[in-house]
Amino acid sequence: MSNPTLDAWHEMIEKRNAAALDDVLADDAVFHSPVVHTPQEGKALTKLYLSAAIMVLGASDFRYVREVVGESDAVLEFTCELDGIHVNGVDMIHWNEAGQIDDFKVMIRPLKAVNLLHRLMGQMLQQTR
Amino acid sequence: MSNPTLDAWHEMIEKRNAAALDDVLADDAVFHSPVVHTPQEGKALTKLYLSAAIMVLGASDFRYVREVVGESDAVLEFTCELDGIHVNGVDMIHWNEAGQIDDFKVMIRPLKAVNLLHRLMGQMLQQTR
Repeated sequence: MSNPTLDAWHEMIEKRNAAALDDVLADDAVFHSPVVHTPQEGKALTKLYLSAAIMVLGASDFRYVREVVGESDAVLEFTCELDGIHVNGVDMIHWNEAGQIDDFKVMIRPLKAVNLLHRLMGQMLQQTR
Repeated sequence: MSNPTLDAWHEMIEKRNAAALDDVLADDAVFHSPVVHTPQEGKALTKLYLSAAIMVLGASDFRYVREVVGESDAVLEFTCELDGIHVNGVDMIHWNEAGQIDDFKVMIRPLKAVNLLHRLMGQMLQQTR
């Protein structure tokens, strides 16, 4: 079953094309980081975090390994290796009635990988800001 | 849409009845912890870890807040507060053709919550072993 939101997402990831986030994200999009509790609110911040994630993870052997799709939510499980550490995580995506992503949450395991992503994302966000 | 595996899971969680894991889990069940990369293989170890999780989280205001269900997988997002720390996580459940759970993966956010669960689960597993 094809889903326009997920199709657009996968195309963006395959091409490592963070610029396409402008079309994919809703104006009121919210990003929930695997590291920090406080949500990052708004399209600009969500784009910033997702761009950094795409740059950090996109340089690895990142691939999706499981996809569970509902009416307005999908959970995409991924795996990759970074600095010799296995990273396993989920992109939890919610979209609005227009098919735009308005909520994006990432969770990571195991603990070593959360700590690694914390460090790498911090470095990347400092460069981007 | 009712799903016998998920119905049994929810009933078990509502009653905090870890004994029901015997019926719910497949013999070759595998548990993937939010903390450690190495899978815990077999029904006995999976039951041990899930029982500990039910005891640790079951004492809190644990509740499911989102459910995404596929043909043979479901992702149940939960939230609770433990020791004043917000815990947000997913139970990623895969079942076999007999409807028994053969793969159970947990991911937790944010980082503070992973560290807290690491400590509390460690204590609980030491008591149980």
